[in-house]
Amino acid sequence: MINFSSNKMLSIPLLILFSSITHASQNVLPSWNDGDTKNKIISFVEKTTKEGSVDFVKPEERIATFDQDGTLWVEHPMYTQFLYIFDRIEYLAQKDNTFKNTEPFKTILTKDPKKISKLTSEQLNIIAATALTGMDVETYNLEVAKWLEKSKDPRWNKLYTELTYLPMRELLDYLRANGYKTYIVTGGGQNFVRVYSDNVYGIPPEQVMGSSFVTKYSYNKAGKPILLIDPSLLINDDFGGKARGIELLIGRKPIISVGNSTGDREMLEYTTSGKGLRLGMLVLHNDDKREYAYGPAEGLPNTEVGRFTQNLYDEALEKGWVIIKMKEDWKKIFSFDE
Amino acid sequence: MINFSSNKMLSIPLLILFSSITHASQNVLPSWNDGDTKNKIISFVEKTTKEGSVDFVKPEERIATFDQDGTLWVEHPMYTQFLYIFDRIEYLAQKDNTFKNTEPFKTILTKDPKKISKLTSEQLNIIAATALTGMDVETYNLEVAKWLEKSKDPRWNKLYTELTYLPMRELLDYLRANGYKTYIVTGGGQNFVRVYSDNVYGIPPEQVMGSSFVTKYSYNKAGKPILLIDPSLLINDDFGGKARGIELLIGRKPIISVGNSTGDREMLEYTTSGKGLRLGMLVLHNDDKREYAYGPAEGLPNTEVGRFTQNLYDEALEKGWVIIKMKEDWKKIFSFDE
Repeated sequence: MINFSSNKMLSIPLLILFSSITHASQNVLPSWNDGDTKNKIISFVEKTTKEGSVDFVKPEERIATFDQDGTLWVEHPMYTQFLYIFDRIEYLAQKDNTFKNTEPFKTILTKDPKKISKLTSEQLNIIAATALTGMDVETYNLEVAKWLEKSKDPRWNKLYTELTYLPMRELLDYLRANGYKTYIVTGGGQNFVRVYSDNVYGIPPEQVMGSSFVTKYSYNKAGKPILLIDPSLLINDDFGGKARGIELLIGRKPIISVGNSTGDREMLEYTTSGKGLRLGMLVLHNDDKREYAYGPAEGLPNTEVGRFTQNLYDEALEKGWVIIKMKEDWKKIFSFDE
Repeated sequence: MINFSSNKMLSIPLLILFSSITHASQNVLPSWNDGDTKNKIISFVEKTTKEGSVDFVKPEERIATFDQDGTLWVEHPMYTQFLYIFDRIEYLAQKDNTFKNTEPFKTILTKDPKKISKLTSEQLNIIAATALTGMDVETYNLEVAKWLEKSKDPRWNKLYTELTYLPMRELLDYLRANGYKTYIVTGGGQNFVRVYSDNVYGIPPEQVMGSSFVTKYSYNKAGKPILLIDPSLLINDDFGGKARGIELLIGRKPIISVGNSTGDREMLEYTTSGKGLRLGMLVLHNDDKREYAYGPAEGLPNTEVGRFTQNLYDEALEKGWVIIKMKEDWKKIFSFDE
């Protein structure tokens, strides 16, 4: 015989229980729209972290690697690190006239975004090397920190560190809450990203891999040891270099990798070649109203900065890599969005 | 008026309290003899971890880096990694006669420990490069694991992984218990050490820096991505290279560094150049009864393997780096010692 009054008292906890089974994670990833992409992420995390699941991954193996430019924050019209580097070239050009007449520096000094966005990655590397040669790592870090404190993106009139994607910050938090260790694996400069990664993403310096120049163990005038930046690239952390960078920094194959461009292809291939369940994801920038739209995948405008080709798009579909579509999948893009 | 009977009841806790003030950590580092070295370590850790202490170090900044060969395990008469590499050269020589007639391989094939111990580090690098070229990282890791499971040191008839120094393992545990993150920074191969570092020292692969060869992102016959070992050195993690390796892997200056040879000098210099309290330590092998004796510091026999010069010894005294003397400071060296 049922006592309705006591049954009524049970109904609220039962409802919560029921709800927690069918929509296990309705409170996670609040800036993601409900749908396939969000479901795939949540389902993957649940399968890999639930004790007893056939896809269970031991906590120490739970490695998630994220590209940065275009994956965690805005990279258009130009990678933020290069905006700092261009400012430094301008500063150097005030003291040395040869910059004004020498390419690719001449292009930078025109300040013409269209011309600048056409610089190749080789030219950008030359520019970076020239800008940073002779600095030591500690001085560089301090300069970057100062630059980031005052420099703003003109479109939004916000600090660059505010132009991070809220859904991705939620994803980082969600993964960490589930025992994943989150890493940045960037084609950009390792040191540059380390300056703010902890404050901005909760990712400490030792979990940031990136491109880096050779350094030289040396001494400053006070006799204190310093690491002088040398102009040659030690690690070009892009394409296959991302897999090599992961091996160097972590020594384990990630379970999850997230990127947004052809430079991330090998990282996803490497990650998803591991045994057991793996997750590869790519952000497609298809929202020029709220952010930017570029591909050329899906017929989006072509670009040199964060290029996402149709080939990569087709490979992703074929291999089951998730394509995160900004426009459809993200309810909010920035924390300051209404 | 004193009531002796109740006073008696208090005497045991009071004794414990008194004892815990004067010998705060009598239960830590049990394989270390009481004395200056042990006291300096404990005092340093207490000062840097006690909330409110002027020398307090935030948990995320508590980085301790350890050399491996000769600091955490036996390196004489030859670095263990090279014993593996020599075995592999022998294997390769069975299939290729040119090794028998070409130096430095010829020397290895003589199996004469005296001749072998005179090989320079350049020659050893050539040998390592030759032995590993064409292998991929995953295969190499599996081979090393297999080799370590069966190969024994002839003097003790023990697995090499059993020839770790018990006092140092206690030190690693003690530091971790006090919130320090422990890293290995080895002149030896990063991959080699990563194979056993977690099991043997409780140091996971992502906390191991070491020398490493360039790798190439490639594919095996099954189309699976692999990292092929290329013969050129990417990172020579020795001397100034140790400071560079620390910057690359960690991006923070350590608070504590421990080594045992001239190859560790710059690591200690770099570490102790940081602000606030820092600890540099060097192990002196002066115990040929229980382990080995070599310097040439303190008039100990000269060596190419783990060389500790009188200059380094004098610099250590001048700079306040602690010299850990095996003979005097360690009660037990190995866990199997009586």
